[in-house]
Amino acid sequence: MDNKIDIPMAVIKRMPKYFRYLEDLLRGNISIISSRELSVKIGFTSSQIRQDLNSFGEFGSRGYGYNVQELYEQVKGILGLYKEHKVIIIGAGNIGQALANYSRLEKLRVRLEAIFDANPKLIGISINDVEIRDVGTLDSYLSENMIDICIICVPCSQVEGIKDILVKHKVKGIWNFSPVDIDIPGGIITENVHFSDSLLTLTCLLNEQQGRQEQKESEDRIA
Amino acid sequence: MDNKIDIPMAVIKRMPKYFRYLEDLLRGNISIISSRELSVKIGFTSSQIRQDLNSFGEFGSRGYGYNVQELYEQVKGILGLYKEHKVIIIGAGNIGQALANYSRLEKLRVRLEAIFDANPKLIGISINDVEIRDVGTLDSYLSENMIDICIICVPCSQVEGIKDILVKHKVKGIWNFSPVDIDIPGGIITENVHFSDSLLTLTCLLNEQQGRQEQKESEDRIA
Repeated sequence: MDNKIDIPMAVIKRMPKYFRYLEDLLRGNISIISSRELSVKIGFTSSQIRQDLNSFGEFGSRGYGYNVQELYEQVKGILGLYKEHKVIIIGAGNIGQALANYSRLEKLRVRLEAIFDANPKLIGISINDVEIRDVGTLDSYLSENMIDICIICVPCSQVEGIKDILVKHKVKGIWNFSPVDIDIPGGIITENVHFSDSLLTLTCLLNEQQGRQEQKESEDRIA
Repeated sequence: MDNKIDIPMAVIKRMPKYFRYLEDLLRGNISIISSRELSVKIGFTSSQIRQDLNSFGEFGSRGYGYNVQELYEQVKGILGLYKEHKVIIIGAGNIGQALANYSRLEKLRVRLEAIFDANPKLIGISINDVEIRDVGTLDSYLSENMIDICIICVPCSQVEGIKDILVKHKVKGIWNFSPVDIDIPGGIITENVHFSDSLLTLTCLLNEQQGRQEQKESEDRIA
């Protein structure tokens, strides 16, 4: 029997933003907020906010607004943040090092357990008090350690080999910063991050804006 | 008169993924692809693909499929990649350095013109042949140089000051890696990047999966 709670992916993708904004409200000592006020801050419509939060159960009371602390705790629960997540970083290049030093991880109870790399010059060095190990020992490391999330920051050519090891050890999640999408059907939950996608969204919007400006200028000349 | 080409943001956000997959197809020497085949690869439905691409004009011919090279060139145009974009990085910490070394920028014709930081230990050092300058000189630099995109990688406390300078000099776009969202209504087009959002999507999905498994186990025990 399949009791899957079918929360649309789009709703799940919006949850982290709710979390960030609720954190901000708490820092600002705001204790009650209406969906309309939250809408202005966060940029989703009030009805979308009500609908999103209803996917997970009853929140807030009509005409009164949301209790920020309560909503924050509940969103935190939805995001699985009451549990500590053990992670490892595979690939200690620029991105891997930036993530190892990323202070927000700790706040989100994400504990960096180990870092792996193939480069002999990096092996043995510590980042944020975590030593870089030889990636050749990843297989045996995962035999002995339960890891929730593997952060992959290796070049394309190394992804397949790493993937096989992670599948073998039934790692739960992959946070993938490598240039190739990882998709393991029915298997490990994966989030693929592509920096350049957001850059290209930006160039696309700039291009559109420029097109509009040029069109306007040409029309102004004709008029 | 407003001649805005109103392409939904969701479509624009999908364009970079089309671009990446079309690049892959070209590398694999695939010259024709149906929307159904593209759908399997990219993970959007065929009808979504047809609808997305139609937002920008006529692509492909019915029953024949898309000419990959042609589609690639057109998506490249939509993304504004026939134009070189001049960028600067503000903040040369881990993320700033990772981006300065990010080889994909060059492939996308994004030219790194300068890097700025406040740390005297970093000023004068070069990353990827670009020297780190004193952020105190940013204002005068922007008076003399036309920059398309500013990449912001500074801590929260410095964002406001930087933002004021960018608004003053009418920079076109901001690619924001700082922890706070930047939103300049009617002003500079901004893409806010939050690493942790994708991590939280992952922990949310892991949490959901665990919830389902626990429910199943408890039902199995009862059955």
